[in-house]
Amino acid sequence: MARLVMKFGGTSVGSVERIKNVAQRVKKEVEAGHEVAVVVSAMSGETNRLVQLTSEVASLHDAREYDVVVSSGEQVTVGLLSMALQDLGINARSWLGWQVPIKTSAVHGSARIEEIDCSEIVKRFADGQVAVCAGFQGIGSDARITTLGRGGSDTSAVALAAALEADRCDIYTDVDGIYTADPRIATKASKLDRITYEEMLELASLGAKVLQTRSVEMAMKHRVKLQVLSSFEELPGTLVVDEEDIVEQHVVSGVTYTRDEAKVTLQQVSDTPGIAATVFGALADAHVNVDMIVQNVSENGKATDLTFTVGKNDLQPALKVLEGLKDKVNCKALVPDPNVVKVSIVGMGMRSHAGVAQTMFAALAEKGINIQVISTSEIKVSVLLAEEYTELAVRTLHSAFNLDAA
Amino acid sequence: MARLVMKFGGTSVGSVERIKNVAQRVKKEVEAGHEVAVVVSAMSGETNRLVQLTSEVASLHDAREYDVVVSSGEQVTVGLLSMALQDLGINARSWLGWQVPIKTSAVHGSARIEEIDCSEIVKRFADGQVAVCAGFQGIGSDARITTLGRGGSDTSAVALAAALEADRCDIYTDVDGIYTADPRIATKASKLDRITYEEMLELASLGAKVLQTRSVEMAMKHRVKLQVLSSFEELPGTLVVDEEDIVEQHVVSGVTYTRDEAKVTLQQVSDTPGIAATVFGALADAHVNVDMIVQNVSENGKATDLTFTVGKNDLQPALKVLEGLKDKVNCKALVPDPNVVKVSIVGMGMRSHAGVAQTMFAALAEKGINIQVISTSEIKVSVLLAEEYTELAVRTLHSAFNLDAA
Repeated sequence: MARLVMKFGGTSVGSVERIKNVAQRVKKEVEAGHEVAVVVSAMSGETNRLVQLTSEVASLHDAREYDVVVSSGEQVTVGLLSMALQDLGINARSWLGWQVPIKTSAVHGSARIEEIDCSEIVKRFADGQVAVCAGFQGIGSDARITTLGRGGSDTSAVALAAALEADRCDIYTDVDGIYTADPRIATKASKLDRITYEEMLELASLGAKVLQTRSVEMAMKHRVKLQVLSSFEELPGTLVVDEEDIVEQHVVSGVTYTRDEAKVTLQQVSDTPGIAATVFGALADAHVNVDMIVQNVSENGKATDLTFTVGKNDLQPALKVLEGLKDKVNCKALVPDPNVVKVSIVGMGMRSHAGVAQTMFAALAEKGINIQVISTSEIKVSVLLAEEYTELAVRTLHSAFNLDAA
Repeated sequence: MARLVMKFGGTSVGSVERIKNVAQRVKKEVEAGHEVAVVVSAMSGETNRLVQLTSEVASLHDAREYDVVVSSGEQVTVGLLSMALQDLGINARSWLGWQVPIKTSAVHGSARIEEIDCSEIVKRFADGQVAVCAGFQGIGSDARITTLGRGGSDTSAVALAAALEADRCDIYTDVDGIYTADPRIATKASKLDRITYEEMLELASLGAKVLQTRSVEMAMKHRVKLQVLSSFEELPGTLVVDEEDIVEQHVVSGVTYTRDEAKVTLQQVSDTPGIAATVFGALADAHVNVDMIVQNVSENGKATDLTFTVGKNDLQPALKVLEGLKDKVNCKALVPDPNVVKVSIVGMGMRSHAGVAQTMFAALAEKGINIQVISTSEIKVSVLLAEEYTELAVRTLHSAFNLDAA
């Protein structure tokens, strides 16, 4: 007997028929003798519909009221899934965030889970009851409904698994696991059986949209064993585990990409101390997150180019801030470029293998792909390229690191 | 300065545009210096959509889960209306049933309000805050969401008005008041300025669909002054008040009708003691409510016809029960007739005026309308007629009691 958390996203509960399918999946685990808590999202499209209503009512609105409206989507799903389970003869009840309770900070719209009291749920496991919990929501210190931000149901599931000391947290999605690259681009991509938390965290941050970054951080912190698997097919998925649970370590486990960033270049700014602090300080004050940064050595010791990337959504606010600074930093021209892609390789094995970055740069050079910016961490190398090279770069790197399936 | 409860039904909040209109109506009362609590229903169509989902998931379902699903409709409306008010510069917050709290019995799907603690709402009135409360929902003794049954938002509004000791409870609807008859049938019908609780209660029970019966009972019990008015036009509506607040009493205040009943005749049953008890006892055991009853005097002292009405929805269950009794009561034939209408006249003045029923019967006879069953109370007379006479009977009685507008 194991204790399991099963999480189903919006697509998996997108219709009455799919909710009934989910009930069958849950039934199977219950009949195998497991204690089960289920976490569900709103039916697909529902959260968008609700968000749309809030923005039609008022363009600037109270995040507390936004949470009241938007959290209703998950409320519908937990009720329907509990009914579907009962219809199959399974003892089940729904739990809203405030009922568990899932206590969060009072930062409405993007609250953080602080504490989950699951004593009542555990008590009912003894009676064979399945807990069907609303993802994405909690109750704030102000006793009002909070939401965790888009994709927050993954975080709800992992946090509940941690609180329940669950043996595993299964994340059911519309893909059947974590791949060595996006299979729509790299046709030779293959599903990974296992991946470390650290790698998964980099992949999630770098563009793989299967798991929410915050949920992976939380799983890593609390050592919750995660599995990503398909809600439509009955196949084993990808396990996200501790490094020591992985026997054969790849140098590079995956290639990923994101088109969500934009490049900005400040041409010919003064090459004097404090310029970078001025620029990035002003951007931070405007809540613009800067990702990759490169500053060229100046030829004459007087002026240099400063290049960096920001989220595409932040490009306009960033340009507004920078326009105001142009004179102050003696910038000749301000050149935005949204047509870029960040391609990354991720792997725990990099720590012990030299020459990984070199292999990457050589492979791209061979295809005539120019690298605009580079950034690295212990287990990843990212490069910024012109967007048109996305597919070519991903396929090239997938081959260069021997990830192509035989 | 007065303390007001304003209630808006599903049609009145049926779109973003209408929610913004409601916010304007509320703003006007706030700017007049009043303390305001608003009660809203789900956006029109929404409750039906949610109910449909529950019945698609499982034909027989847990009423507790039904309440979780269906109560989400009002949750959306309170959030949106609070935003719309804030957008107009009005301090407002939403309150769900469990937040107020509105404590109810745990009879899920048709709970009764037991207690409302509105101390926090009153405290916030002092800060000029408008309370936007979800109608139709509460929290049961089992700490789970309950709903009051269809149309329950009227009851929520009146109960809140009673708890708040409000000066008035305004029920905004898609009609602009209570009419002497359905204006779609009686073109000469006119709006009543005032009506007593007792008359309103009879009208609501007898087919007028403007107010839910339970809400009128509650208003009468707690002496909550009700006003029914249009949410689309700015006109005074109809006040529902104590008898002593009405200066000029009509003999008959209104004519109403309902097609929701069906007639059943047991032909030639034994005219012996205990037959009625057997028949109506068996129907009561099957939870079938019987309304009008008539038993003819038997010609030979041996057999008689027993006729009564039940709700149209109860006709099939009633016939099933009666089929099983046919032999026991020596019934020759069981004749159902769903094509009937109950037409009623209602008026406090009847208590002190003789001959009202006689006037009614004579007016119908003059038009050749046959009366099948009669029932009376202190302030109403109801007759059962063939359904085809509905419009003719309503117009005839409206004229006979001098209700036609000049």
